[in-house]
Amino acid sequence: MHRDGTLAAMSRGLVILIGGREATRGEPACLRRFVTECGGRRCRVAVIGVASEDPRAVRETYEPVFAELGAEVRFLMLPDRGSAFRPEAEAAVGEADGLFFAGGDQLRITSLLGGTPVARAVRRRWEEGAVLAGTSAGASAMSQTMIVGGEGDAPPTLNTIRMAPGLGILEGAVVDQHFAQRGRIGRLLSALAQNPDVLGIGLDEDTALAVGGDGVAEVVGTNTVTFLDAREASGSNASEARSSALALTDVRLHVLPGGYRFDLRSRRPLPPRDGEVGV
Amino acid sequence: MHRDGTLAAMSRGLVILIGGREATRGEPACLRRFVTECGGRRCRVAVIGVASEDPRAVRETYEPVFAELGAEVRFLMLPDRGSAFRPEAEAAVGEADGLFFAGGDQLRITSLLGGTPVARAVRRRWEEGAVLAGTSAGASAMSQTMIVGGEGDAPPTLNTIRMAPGLGILEGAVVDQHFAQRGRIGRLLSALAQNPDVLGIGLDEDTALAVGGDGVAEVVGTNTVTFLDAREASGSNASEARSSALALTDVRLHVLPGGYRFDLRSRRPLPPRDGEVGV
Repeated sequence: MHRDGTLAAMSRGLVILIGGREATRGEPACLRRFVTECGGRRCRVAVIGVASEDPRAVRETYEPVFAELGAEVRFLMLPDRGSAFRPEAEAAVGEADGLFFAGGDQLRITSLLGGTPVARAVRRRWEEGAVLAGTSAGASAMSQTMIVGGEGDAPPTLNTIRMAPGLGILEGAVVDQHFAQRGRIGRLLSALAQNPDVLGIGLDEDTALAVGGDGVAEVVGTNTVTFLDAREASGSNASEARSSALALTDVRLHVLPGGYRFDLRSRRPLPPRDGEVGV
Repeated sequence: MHRDGTLAAMSRGLVILIGGREATRGEPACLRRFVTECGGRRCRVAVIGVASEDPRAVRETYEPVFAELGAEVRFLMLPDRGSAFRPEAEAAVGEADGLFFAGGDQLRITSLLGGTPVARAVRRRWEEGAVLAGTSAGASAMSQTMIVGGEGDAPPTLNTIRMAPGLGILEGAVVDQHFAQRGRIGRLLSALAQNPDVLGIGLDEDTALAVGGDGVAEVVGTNTVTFLDAREASGSNASEARSSALALTDVRLHVLPGGYRFDLRSRRPLPPRDGEVGV
């Protein structure tokens, strides 16, 4: 979060964070939204598969659905750091209308891409207005400080979470994915307890948060996005409780389904665009 | 919650709600607290096993630990409604310093005990000052409207939760158990969305909430208790969203580990009694 309270993302292209296991057949709401925002049919999408150790699975997952949605797709698997220095990879990023980070391990994204020409090209292309999307590990990596591991279905303790520097696309927020499905509120609260200034964003599976340049984010898909705002927390024992359970009080929680919006600047929920349901 | 904002429990004996899988060897903190509150060594405890279909397992679980803690234990298994009309069972309840509802299925507790002389004796004995405890299903059943089923590790939807009338010991609150371990925040939020007036209490395993006559509750055990207060929720789509995901905004969340306290009247967290950690 910048000092004036705006997210760095505000002046750049759209960022679409997806909570993993997004539909690729039937109604692929999250991916359809991504393609639409990239310009619709014949838009150029670069799928960046660096998070995965199985490039073939990435291709088999995304080739049919992006073809169905009418996008022209290139796959950049970038299996090692060396490949992220190749001018052809940099050029492919520079020509894309949308950049899609597939899932896997977020540490592969940052350890293999961090500081490379491809990483700089991704940021530059996004600053020029390209849509930047990531699912699962690809969503987590968008945070400035990202969650890289930690138990699900567990109460918050400092021991249940590991964090590392992320791509820094979404400043002032920590993103977690597979949120309800893997019982991850404990580990996201553990992150917030360590610095209640950051906004916690928990993305359910097959659900996306499309963050616009105006700081207004919209939920897309079949499940929910949970927002945890601990800025007004009246107490935290994070600095003392190295091994035991955490205390964290007065956290504001919002859970929003598809169509609902959230203003990341004011941290306030907004009603759906069609206004049919009041918030 | 009574109109004056006090819980009905206030003027009666202590209520100890346990989130299931409490330690029965090593350091059995939850059960030790129960026995201490019952008067310590030689206190009379009645274990009510009605929730379980396996009376032998209940006895094998609790006989050694209560013996170790010095309590004199009677087991009331009450396998059918008929047994809850037997004067001997009623008398056993009437003589106990502490009544302990073991786990199993909360619908067995209410369907087999509801409206029987034993149920009335339990309430009377508690009103006279006996300690009333319940673990897992036994904790859930203490609510006025209790959760009887619903998916874990799922976002809040009205479809993920089923509720039924509970024993009504703890008015104004809905209790869920195995809370972090089974990813149950979604289903507890589903309960609150349907009536944001009730306080949501989520008990982790091996963790208890001891609710005193003054409305102040203390967390005991190795994990945490989560309090969800949706009274100031600015929006809910519960009346429209029959099948899709729920929206619920501005829920206040507190997560407290052992030693921390919570005032159920004011719905405010309190620091531990020894005051060493600020809240």
